[in-house]
Amino acid sequence: MAGLVVAVALAYGANAAAQPTSAAPADKAATRAVHSTAIGAQAADARIRLTRVSPAYWRVTFASPPLNIVGPAEVRALVKIVEAIEASKEVKVVVFDSALPESFIAHYDLLKPLKDSTDMEPGPTGMHPVPDMMVRIARLPVVTISSIRGRATGIGSELILATDMRFASREKAILSQWEVGAGLVAGGGPMARLPRLVGRGRAMEILIASDDIDGDIAERYGYVNRALPDAELDGFVDAMARRIASFERSAIVETKKLVNVASLPPDAEMQPGWDAFIASVNRPETQLRLKALVDKGLQQPGEAEKNLGRATANYKP
Amino acid sequence: MAGLVVAVALAYGANAAAQPTSAAPADKAATRAVHSTAIGAQAADARIRLTRVSPAYWRVTFASPPLNIVGPAEVRALVKIVEAIEASKEVKVVVFDSALPESFIAHYDLLKPLKDSTDMEPGPTGMHPVPDMMVRIARLPVVTISSIRGRATGIGSELILATDMRFASREKAILSQWEVGAGLVAGGGPMARLPRLVGRGRAMEILIASDDIDGDIAERYGYVNRALPDAELDGFVDAMARRIASFERSAIVETKKLVNVASLPPDAEMQPGWDAFIASVNRPETQLRLKALVDKGLQQPGEAEKNLGRATANYKP
Amino acid sequence: MAGLVVAVALAYGANAAAQPTSAAPADKAATRAVHSTAIGAQAADARIRLTRVSPAYWRVTFASPPLNIVGPAEVRALVKIVEAIEASKEVKVVVFDSALPESFIAHYDLLKPLKDSTDMEPGPTGMHPVPDMMVRIARLPVVTISSIRGRATGIGSELILATDMRFASREKAILSQWEVGAGLVAGGGPMARLPRLVGRGRAMEILIASDDIDGDIAERYGYVNRALPDAELDGFVDAMARRIASFERSAIVETKKLVNVASLPPDAEMQPGWDAFIASVNRPETQLRLKALVDKGLQQPGEAEKNLGRATANYKP
Repeated sequence: MAGLVVAVALAYGANAAAQPTSAAPADKAATRAVHSTAIGAQAADARIRLTRVSPAYWRVTFASPPLNIVGPAEVRALVKIVEAIEASKEVKVVVFDSALPESFIAHYDLLKPLKDSTDMEPGPTGMHPVPDMMVRIARLPVVTISSIRGRATGIGSELILATDMRFASREKAILSQWEVGAGLVAGGGPMARLPRLVGRGRAMEILIASDDIDGDIAERYGYVNRALPDAELDGFVDAMARRIASFERSAIVETKKLVNVASLPPDAEMQPGWDAFIASVNRPETQLRLKALVDKGLQQPGEAEKNLGRATANYKP
Repeated sequence: MAGLVVAVALAYGANAAAQPTSAAPADKAATRAVHSTAIGAQAADARIRLTRVSPAYWRVTFASPPLNIVGPAEVRALVKIVEAIEASKEVKVVVFDSALPESFIAHYDLLKPLKDSTDMEPGPTGMHPVPDMMVRIARLPVVTISSIRGRATGIGSELILATDMRFASREKAILSQWEVGAGLVAGGGPMARLPRLVGRGRAMEILIASDDIDGDIAERYGYVNRALPDAELDGFVDAMARRIASFERSAIVETKKLVNVASLPPDAEMQPGWDAFIASVNRPETQLRLKALVDKGLQQPGEAEKNLGRATANYKP
Repeated sequence: MAGLVVAVALAYGANAAAQPTSAAPADKAATRAVHSTAIGAQAADARIRLTRVSPAYWRVTFASPPLNIVGPAEVRALVKIVEAIEASKEVKVVVFDSALPESFIAHYDLLKPLKDSTDMEPGPTGMHPVPDMMVRIARLPVVTISSIRGRATGIGSELILATDMRFASREKAILSQWEVGAGLVAGGGPMARLPRLVGRGRAMEILIASDDIDGDIAERYGYVNRALPDAELDGFVDAMARRIASFERSAIVETKKLVNVASLPPDAEMQPGWDAFIASVNRPETQLRLKALVDKGLQQPGEAEKNLGRATANYKP
């Protein structure tokens, strides 16, 4: 009954080493944090790569096989990258993409002890590092573009929603906020962002039906700017990034600042989502649901992660 | 000149019994109110049926031939249903649909004495029962889904806008806010809801050009989440409702609460619309327009109701 | 090196007569202002024509060959037209269109001395006449419809965004906010309006990638209500205008007033955009960019204006 142990571990801080079904064992996770904070390192095993294509054009690439799971270590690495972007006087545009064709970012790490998440020090906004990071990404004085191939679920969806623009592979992108399907409340701000982006009706569907959304529907809903044929996605985003990188930094910064006034949710809407997420993880009914999902193969390559919307359906307590 | 009598009756409280052209005579209307308050009754003649598919999944079905006209009696019945949903600790999802293939809800009853509407006691929000009901539907601690086949006009459109999600038959749905075309101002909140849902430009078109909108345009505009082939609509909505009904109630409730913060119009925007509606009905020019529409067959099965957008065009005083 | 003179002229008030490459020499510009203030004149050489199709249905037609450039004189003429609309008790609907198939409004006049713009007296809102005019157009107690064929860029896009609805030729409309590509910040309010209309992500793309948007994408993004086949555009808009003109003025006015509450950006968001625009024009780097664009043919008929999005790319300082 490894699954049960795993799921309970998440909530009650049981030793991560007791997680035999985890695809990313505890010792690897430590390594991961070290590698990912090596900002700019182009080493093949860097889990989150920061590439400076030029002083004005940077790329952040998620490269943490097999699923690009994001947990506390990855959040810390991302915060360091956010700080590097904030500190630069030259960068104008940052593209976020994935090195794994099947996964942009699968979702938050549910096999780590929950304490690892709740013990994190608040960020400069005073919020927990997850909502803090999301708010700071949205306010970066550069343009951020998500290039989405594979699954962007949970914190993956929340991250792309924090960036300024989103382009998706029509054939290979899968977006979702799967949390309600797993008995959870989403923690990284989509209740604040999605209704303002796609309208209340479609936001409710994405968040509460919490099913997989393909590239075509994502475009129709305005969840992404456009869905592009998979073969054109990389070229399209790269061309747009180079175009923007050739513009005046001050024009970009001032324009974005005024768009922010008209479109960013108040910071005060962000922390409640995180608090509701933590509360939801601790509910016994949710623990049972998560256990059932882990038994089905959650957080491992395979059918459950591939069709996560289907995996959350038909749960019987 | 029955039409004139009828139209004036609406504004000046003339006895409803003097309405020879009405498709729903006064004695029937009384019956209707009784039936529709029999919540949960599955009697074939219930005008608004509440069906508990399961403790978690309820359906509200408009079944008031020939047009699903909504007047004071239907509002009272709907309020009772809203109260039943508010009181339940088990229900998670409620689907609103129609038993009449041609009509979801045609529009507000314009053949009843206006006094029947204005004399209604305010609801718990302090507003008239129509805006009160719309506000309470939007805040229900369950997910509400409209499944739209046939005409959803005026209060029909306002009701689906108060629900959380909308799915429409691509071939058979007709949505509209027809009020301006009849000299009226819409009373159930669409000026507050539509601009936030579809943007100012498309909201202006829907509200002021006040023409019929088919399923295809409704989807393109974001007026509905999706338009589906008519043959797939019922199955799609039922599957989504069952999916949601299988989720944790607390996750649904808390997620919706946070979406509400980001997307519900302030209650203060609702009552002014109702007041403007009542004022508009009382204008002599509007009475003449309504009379002309009644002469054309308004509120009876036939061409005028089928193509209401056309019926409001080319009015000559 | 006329281009340099021209571009600097904009910022530093050099005599407009020193602009040999300008397609609209200074003496013509004076004439233009006179003609365009002749409201209602149907003279063939009127630069902005006001046509009263009927007391309820007016049209404003931009007819300033070759590009429909808008500068201080045109703004003054437009303000007079706005005042005429505000003063009328009969007009219900105003259509804005262009007599030039290639250009709705190309963009703001960048060859006039900047002082001509900055010296203008504030309007009744207390703001500079450009944001003042935009705010007043949006608040007009009539419905305004843009019928877009050819290029609507910069102030052309800002004007259509200030109107209530937008319909575009699918084949021949080109919309854009090109400013960031030219080192500028947009001055007429699109940072306030676009995010509320098309969502933050698509607004960021339009404003910061600042590339040409065709009719098809404009519709998909919600930048326009609909894109129509070019051959149907005029008939569609005219029919909608006649339809609205047949409705009750009070119903239109009150409905729009309530839509305004839910959808207009606060006036306070408008002036900062204009101030940022003026500041951006004065930056030396932007002057060099504008000079390079003028050298490429900016503000003259030809390749640069036709493919303005391309003209702003690949700038090398």
